[in-house]
Amino acid sequence: MTTTEAREEVVLEAVRQRREHVNDAIPEELPIDEPTRLYEASRYLLDAGGKRLRPTVLLSVAESLADVDPLSTDYRSFPTLAAGDADRAGPETIDLMGAAVSVEVIQSFTLIHDDIMDDDDLRRGVPAVHREYDVETAILAGDTLYSKAFEIMLEVGATPDRTVEALDVLAHTCTQICEGQARDVEFEARDDVLPEEYLEMVEQKTAVLFAASASLPAVLMGADRETIDQLYGYGLDVGRAFQIQDDVLDLTVPSDKLGKQRGSDLVENKQTLITVHARERGVDVADLVDTDDVEAVTEAEIDDAVAALEESGSIEYANQKARDLVEQGKDRLEVLPDNEARTLLIELADYLIERGY
Amino acid sequence: MTTTEAREEVVLEAVRQRREHVNDAIPEELPIDEPTRLYEASRYLLDAGGKRLRPTVLLSVAESLADVDPLSTDYRSFPTLAAGDADRAGPETIDLMGAAVSVEVIQSFTLIHDDIMDDDDLRRGVPAVHREYDVETAILAGDTLYSKAFEIMLEVGATPDRTVEALDVLAHTCTQICEGQARDVEFEARDDVLPEEYLEMVEQKTAVLFAASASLPAVLMGADRETIDQLYGYGLDVGRAFQIQDDVLDLTVPSDKLGKQRGSDLVENKQTLITVHARERGVDVADLVDTDDVEAVTEAEIDDAVAALEESGSIEYANQKARDLVEQGKDRLEVLPDNEARTLLIELADYLIERGY
Repeated sequence: MTTTEAREEVVLEAVRQRREHVNDAIPEELPIDEPTRLYEASRYLLDAGGKRLRPTVLLSVAESLADVDPLSTDYRSFPTLAAGDADRAGPETIDLMGAAVSVEVIQSFTLIHDDIMDDDDLRRGVPAVHREYDVETAILAGDTLYSKAFEIMLEVGATPDRTVEALDVLAHTCTQICEGQARDVEFEARDDVLPEEYLEMVEQKTAVLFAASASLPAVLMGADRETIDQLYGYGLDVGRAFQIQDDVLDLTVPSDKLGKQRGSDLVENKQTLITVHARERGVDVADLVDTDDVEAVTEAEIDDAVAALEESGSIEYANQKARDLVEQGKDRLEVLPDNEARTLLIELADYLIERGY
Repeated sequence: MTTTEAREEVVLEAVRQRREHVNDAIPEELPIDEPTRLYEASRYLLDAGGKRLRPTVLLSVAESLADVDPLSTDYRSFPTLAAGDADRAGPETIDLMGAAVSVEVIQSFTLIHDDIMDDDDLRRGVPAVHREYDVETAILAGDTLYSKAFEIMLEVGATPDRTVEALDVLAHTCTQICEGQARDVEFEARDDVLPEEYLEMVEQKTAVLFAASASLPAVLMGADRETIDQLYGYGLDVGRAFQIQDDVLDLTVPSDKLGKQRGSDLVENKQTLITVHARERGVDVADLVDTDDVEAVTEAEIDDAVAALEESGSIEYANQKARDLVEQGKDRLEVLPDNEARTLLIELADYLIERGY
């Protein structure tokens, strides 16, 4: 086992431990109420799995802020920073797990609606909700999760002003995710997307939910503005790096390990930071792969395309961009106390760009 | 002009006057931001018209609570009940118009997604959003309106505790609308729906947003619990009556006045309070009209079906139910000061079941 693999194992174990708690909490926050078919469809993707990266970020930030040992404190009754401080009156504890489930529910809602829009058949190894049920039910399941995420956040038990700020973060995050998704669709019809435009799209579509996950515990626990802002920035940085790394992995990881055809983004003419950069360097990106059919493409064709993108420095450009963002994000964690949970957040940032798939 | 028509004219004029204000506020609250296509699609149905009944209820309740003359006060800077009362500290004014736009935005979001689910082509005399644009854009436009409604409500400027309660009402209302829509779809496959089940579905699908509209000004202005609850009940009552009346009008108003084929609910085997009641009385509802094609049905067939439903007492049952609900709702307005705005709310309730179409 290499050093990188050993560190990756530590991070994955930390994620796994928190995932157990999150998985237990999901049916508590989202019981199968009447009408049962609607709630079963709403829970379908949540129950199908997922790493729970965003809840892990949220819970770990809270553990670092509260300066408690990881996994030592009941997430349902988690200390706030106001406890014992008369000047910052607030509840002694909040239901931090509710906040963690709320962001995972938002994530699930966006995936359900995205899969309808992209007409994707599979998600997390199971049929997409609109395939397992139908488009009508999938639209409605997403809509239900949307309002449930707000209902769950409203029950966290923070002071009214902190609750208002948390809901503001959540609502604005959802608006930005919609804007990012709309830009992503719009980019498909354009061949002049600039790297800055791509990064802005990724920020909205992917990174803002990481940013919300990192900053919400600070908002709910009563941290100061500087802390909240830096944590938000950490989420934006690692969230963008996470998406850029996804684009790199699509080209560099063997198909069997990736779980889908390597280079499928190229075949489908999807815009990524790599193709956007290559086009600026004069590479004829649209013709890198001849076929538009993921089933028909050969490994040799993908190899040639990847060689051209390496030649133009585009893969290294994306790699470097992801590394820079992760370093920038890690630096922001200076606002947290130096403790085990903060170390985990640093390692989590590294993991997001070092992970093999 | 009959007395009923004259009273209807008064109500419609009051609705018209408030609609002007609401129509002016919509582009202020929902400007066409980037990405423009997304925001144009989000605004498309809002800009296509609509009576603005829910905002009218919201604004009128506020005018009655504040005991001001209708249309005499700036909705953007509307007095709260706390003003001048040190024991109920709060802002002197709130942006009541923001709250009114928020509920109209929720209404618009549900219509956009419902039209996709029902595959309806037309809405308010223009193509449905998924026809004018496409299904992907319509899903995303609805999602954008969803979070925008929360963002707008967050900007009303009420105290944090009142804002939290208002968002709780809004989130719970959205969840119930989803549940109601899911039940409506589920009912299509059943032939044993009971009147109570139908009324519960209508409460969730239609009435809760009227209830939110009636109670939100009381929440935001700082009214007492009894007032909030009675106003919520008023909205539930008149909202259910409104939907039942829609079902009656589908059978009794000539097609040219209705703007669609009279009896289309029967042709499409849609469950209504009338058909649910008739089935209980032994009428073979599924065979009342032979054809399943709205284009092919004859007026004579509809006449025969309506005669059968009159014979079973089902139309009169629905009429009576709507009248009872309106009377019950009007009684709840006793919690409001006796003023011109309260009279309008009483007349509005009558109008909802006396309207010809």
